[in-house]
Amino acid sequence: MTTLPDTSNPFPENVDQVFTHCRVATMAKGNYGIMENAALAVSGKSIAWIGPMDALPETLGCKMVTNCRNQWILPGFVDCHTHLIWAGSRAKEFEMRLDGASYADIAKAGGGIVSTVKATRAASENTLFDLASSRMAHFLTQGITTVEIKSGYGLDLDTELKMLAVAGRLNKACPQHITATFLGAHALPPEFASRSDDYISEITQVMLPAVKHQGIATAVDAFCETIAFSREQTRQVLETAIVLGFAVKLHAEQLSDSSGTAMAAQMGALSCDHLEYLSTEGAEKMAAHGTVAVLLPGAFYYLKEKKVPPLDVFRRLCIPMAVATDLNPGSSPVHSMIPVLNMACLLFGLTCEEALAGATIHGAKALGLADRKGSLEPGKDADFVIWDVASPADLCYLTGITPVKMVVIAGRTEHRSV
Amino acid sequence: MTTLPDTSNPFPENVDQVFTHCRVATMAKGNYGIMENAALAVSGKSIAWIGPMDALPETLGCKMVTNCRNQWILPGFVDCHTHLIWAGSRAKEFEMRLDGASYADIAKAGGGIVSTVKATRAASENTLFDLASSRMAHFLTQGITTVEIKSGYGLDLDTELKMLAVAGRLNKACPQHITATFLGAHALPPEFASRSDDYISEITQVMLPAVKHQGIATAVDAFCETIAFSREQTRQVLETAIVLGFAVKLHAEQLSDSSGTAMAAQMGALSCDHLEYLSTEGAEKMAAHGTVAVLLPGAFYYLKEKKVPPLDVFRRLCIPMAVATDLNPGSSPVHSMIPVLNMACLLFGLTCEEALAGATIHGAKALGLADRKGSLEPGKDADFVIWDVASPADLCYLTGITPVKMVVIAGRTEHRSV
Repeated sequence: MTTLPDTSNPFPENVDQVFTHCRVATMAKGNYGIMENAALAVSGKSIAWIGPMDALPETLGCKMVTNCRNQWILPGFVDCHTHLIWAGSRAKEFEMRLDGASYADIAKAGGGIVSTVKATRAASENTLFDLASSRMAHFLTQGITTVEIKSGYGLDLDTELKMLAVAGRLNKACPQHITATFLGAHALPPEFASRSDDYISEITQVMLPAVKHQGIATAVDAFCETIAFSREQTRQVLETAIVLGFAVKLHAEQLSDSSGTAMAAQMGALSCDHLEYLSTEGAEKMAAHGTVAVLLPGAFYYLKEKKVPPLDVFRRLCIPMAVATDLNPGSSPVHSMIPVLNMACLLFGLTCEEALAGATIHGAKALGLADRKGSLEPGKDADFVIWDVASPADLCYLTGITPVKMVVIAGRTEHRSV
Repeated sequence: MTTLPDTSNPFPENVDQVFTHCRVATMAKGNYGIMENAALAVSGKSIAWIGPMDALPETLGCKMVTNCRNQWILPGFVDCHTHLIWAGSRAKEFEMRLDGASYADIAKAGGGIVSTVKATRAASENTLFDLASSRMAHFLTQGITTVEIKSGYGLDLDTELKMLAVAGRLNKACPQHITATFLGAHALPPEFASRSDDYISEITQVMLPAVKHQGIATAVDAFCETIAFSREQTRQVLETAIVLGFAVKLHAEQLSDSSGTAMAAQMGALSCDHLEYLSTEGAEKMAAHGTVAVLLPGAFYYLKEKKVPPLDVFRRLCIPMAVATDLNPGSSPVHSMIPVLNMACLLFGLTCEEALAGATIHGAKALGLADRKGSLEPGKDADFVIWDVASPADLCYLTGITPVKMVVIAGRTEHRSV
């Protein structure tokens, strides 16, 4: 179950920091990769060395030595699927539903995704930035060090660009690494009611070129579902995106099987996300094309879904499973990876090791960042979290507490618990 | 849906603190009891006055005025069912189960409640105190201001007394109010294997008198279930407890219907807890005797139960429903009321108002403390939380974040968010 990192390398010269007396779960190759009684050295923004305590030189000539007192170090969480930028609240809608309101009642009261679109369009860029900043600050306290953020609550050119501009500002202002994804094809905007093909043309002919021109997103996503866009419509979006040089990914098979996954995988998608209704054929296409399965148990839980993604098929075909918060105000107001790990285990049946790999190395893979993020290996970014837990499994087992001690990003200590 | 407090009282003289510009959900009588643009005055350890901002005198001659900037004040959470004192971890067991281990495998590996009993017996009183203190400190950050703590991981006289002594020390050392419950009849200790009647005699003849003599618990609980003790056995425990002057309560109908609830209600139990398998007849007995239904969705979730408690019956019979964390290392490692509120709504179907009443006034009722705790009313203890939320429903809707601004207990500010 565990893969130890190569410890044959001698301790390097010129390291800046050493974290001593720790237990490390490297998560390399998706396994715990546990080293007990270990030390981790950082040079600049990168991990320089990980090895046993007794391989440390007698004298450490570095700027800082941190004694971890046998606590655990794991890679920082990579949250590879969020809709973190929005305005407005959907708590009222949550409450109305519990009080017995129908979807029609909620729509009549101005609820649903349209309410978030309306509030996000109305909000200034600064307001959106402030709201999202505070979510990013909370994410930091939860050990999340890399975040993907999607647009998709604008559904018009100006607001989509505004959201992506906010993502860019967050990337500069927050310690976490952020990747921005254009999700114009998230829902049909009210202005295009009954004209979904026209909206798809707007995306491919107007929005995508503008996003490309501004250079403010690296990936393009779409929602392929009966309540959103058809496979053919999402194909047009992804095809245009690929021509323009974007990475692509897809919200697929969440509520029904539209075979969007097979299409997206064949187009080289980095990931397909949700996947509760995925067929074996679709999974085979993912395996053939190296597409990551992104599992989103928060949305499954909030929507009271019953059908779980086909884990056994993913395992048999060796498809990497990532897990993510899907943070959004409607179907997954989940502001931490800790409950996601827990739900991935209890609701979907992942093992703790699979869930933790999903929140680290496989999350990084879903973003095309596995060369830099998601595991503790020499040469990778020094993004990691020191946890006050008895074992990594505690992070999946606990509810209502996040036992973070310290969060390090690119070699800098960005958060300490009080 | 809302009940406004009586605002006819004039603003009192000699108040110590005033919290101005707030929105208040008093939770009096189990309703939101919302007052917008309100103020709350504290005198000593008690609430002196709640009323509209425009009823405040022009000059406030008190020690401290806090402008709440339109944030929400709710009563502090009353967690009326916890097993907060234990040693050892059960994360390994959680992980083994996800990896496919059977209960027999886990027992063979030393898991299950017996492992917690073993670790708790082996731990010194100081160790137990330190472990529990840190849980209480975390509870404070979660807005929990009153906590019931049960013994029940000793199952021998010395360790049961040790646990209750720790509860007493916590009550002195922590800002929260703690009530201690003796739960000797939690499980059959290994020494009494196949001799459960003998263990019940040990409880009634040795343990209960000793607990009474030391005056270190106010209530007695027992676990009436096929895997624990029979209705007749738990009856003996509760009868002895009543004779000795303890309040009584019961873990009942969690995994099957043993009719323990009807029995306990007829004996005047403060609460019956779990209740997934409760019959209508049992509920009728609760209604007739004023017994509170304590719902524990954390255990339901962790145990992957499917049968929910009969909410409609509780509603029809006007039985107060409390909700609690059931914090324990086996079936509910839930360290906050926020996920409990969420699960109560999403898994059990409580409305947000019912869930919040369950965590406040009905929790207080389940502890016999409704005259002092659980709602914001003049004369009651000044235990409340200022929340950075748009509406009280947010506390049920959010996951992975606890938007506490300030926690006040007995008039003192005991926690502020950073």
